Amino acid sequence: MAAAPPFKPFTLAMIQLGQVGADKSANLRHAREMIHKAAQGAVSPRLMSLQECFNSPYGHVHFPVYAETIGFEPGQPYDVAKTESESVKLLSAAAKDTGVWLLGGTIPERTPEGKVYNTAMVYSPKGDLVAIHRKVHLFDIDIPGKITFKESETLTGGSSTNYFDTEFARIGLGICYDVRFPELAAIAARRGCQVCIYPGAFNTTTGPLHWELLQRARAADNQIFFGMCSPARDLTAGYHAWGHSLVVDPMAKVIGQLEHEEDILFVDIDPKTFTEARAGIPVTTQRRFDVYPDVSKAQ
Amino acid sequence: MAAAPPFKPFTLAMIQLGQVGADKSANLRHAREMIHKAAQGAVSPRLMSLQECFNSPYGHVHFPVYAETIGFEPGQPYDVAKTESESVKLLSAAAKDTGVWLLGGTIPERTPEGKVYNTAMVYSPKGDLVAIHRKVHLFDIDIPGKITFKESETLTGGSSTNYFDTEFARIGLGICYDVRFPELAAIAARRGCQVCIYPGAFNTTTGPLHWELLQRARAADNQIFFGMCSPARDLTAGYHAWGHSLVVDPMAKVIGQLEHEEDILFVDIDPKTFTEARAGIPVTTQRRFDVYPDVSKAQ
Repeated sequence: MAAAPPFKPFTLAMIQLGQVGADKSANLRHAREMIHKAAQGAVSPRLMSLQECFNSPYGHVHFPVYAETIGFEPGQPYDVAKTESESVKLLSAAAKDTGVWLLGGTIPERTPEGKVYNTAMVYSPKGDLVAIHRKVHLFDIDIPGKITFKESETLTGGSSTNYFDTEFARIGLGICYDVRFPELAAIAARRGCQVCIYPGAFNTTTGPLHWELLQRARAADNQIFFGMCSPARDLTAGYHAWGHSLVVDPMAKVIGQLEHEEDILFVDIDPKTFTEARAGIPVTTQRRFDVYPDVSKAQ
Repeated sequence: MAAAPPFKPFTLAMIQLGQVGADKSANLRHAREMIHKAAQGAVSPRLMSLQECFNSPYGHVHFPVYAETIGFEPGQPYDVAKTESESVKLLSAAAKDTGVWLLGGTIPERTPEGKVYNTAMVYSPKGDLVAIHRKVHLFDIDIPGKITFKESETLTGGSSTNYFDTEFARIGLGICYDVRFPELAAIAARRGCQVCIYPGAFNTTTGPLHWELLQRARAADNQIFFGMCSPARDLTAGYHAWGHSLVVDPMAKVIGQLEHEEDILFVDIDPKTFTEARAGIPVTTQRRFDVYPDVSKAQ
């Protein structure tokens, strides 16, 4: 595994989209508008993130209908010109047109075997698709009287951990419910990620309970920046997202957070905070039960 | 490893002692008074905990001076009648006299090789010393202008994870800075502990930053009860403890917390919360990267 890029200051933009409805083309057009709006913000972002399921409503009936074939293989070049995926084409063009790294939220992905994953994609400023992450831990939840949902009824869980390198940081990936499993962020941090970003969509039950807690925990335990990008809340939709897209620094301080409406969060990521946290409270060097395996060679 | 005891309701008492001064005998007498006071509380506790370093001031000059030889070997019977340790004698008698399980905070422990550990001890209601935990991760911290301390200058870190079984739960052990390392509580939970208790002594810098966050994180990530017992704050002492002894339930809800004065916290531990948390958000069964090794046979 190559060493992580030297960590340099950059501005991160979290795009909390509203207006996600049944019309996929309209959803994509709106995402493109907001990506361009974010790129033209007062502080130019170097990296932007969309939310989980940004091109479709959230729900079992929607996943297979909105699913697209991506066909990305890690380590292999990917020819965007040959893709059939409407979302890939749009995100690639938006990244290229703005010249900004784009974590393109997640979309339902269909594989040739007919499986459907909840998949995040990453585009370089040249428009290349450079990484994907398939949600590993599916949202299976049953809080009586509040929320019951079983993603595993229609989705398949991924089985790999993923990150991507930019010229300013190594960025670890996860999606929503993945944040409940500390292993994923711990593995990312031990592989050199200085930042983790998870597109997510907590709801009005789990949001108040754990949205901020889990992100602050991942940040403090691994002494990394940690952020999640949520959809805006839409009470006319079947799923009521929590909103509150959030970024936390390596001392577990919340350094940016939105309300629940459509909005864009701009956050300055300062490597000094990262260096000072690790020097001040040397958790990363004093670890005595390093019970995670050597994951440096594993995918 | 034997199965964990079936989880039954019980009341936990956290004894947040003040008046810890230079006179060890006075410290021990005061601890005994407060143990008896806790045992006679309106709700009889089945388990009580003292804080980290309850028999001595906190600091490098104090650790070797107050250190006692305990001589406990895991799995071997321990004869309290033959001990030379003033603290062991007192805690054993207090547990026996009250008939309550006692996590007797921590004391500096000297071994025959001359090493000094920061060691927690557990006494059964019969007064038997049944388990110890030597603080694994030493408090080495350097936040300029706020707090700088290096326990590793005078203390040695332990190298084992530990728990004890009562007739109502399996209780995992750790001490203070150990809480910054998620592995310890994760191992305890995967060994069947339903509750973890760490005597601790965060300070007025690290307390506001991370005291509650880390306990809520350990509770949520492992879906266990988690609590830490602190000293009361004494601004005339060299070390200003945060206080705020705390207990969190498996949904990360704070179910009891003290202020910073001397006080006793009584908390009802209800296995229903534990069962409901694990059924509602099935993190413990859905784990996909179970990257902890099989620790069931390790000590």
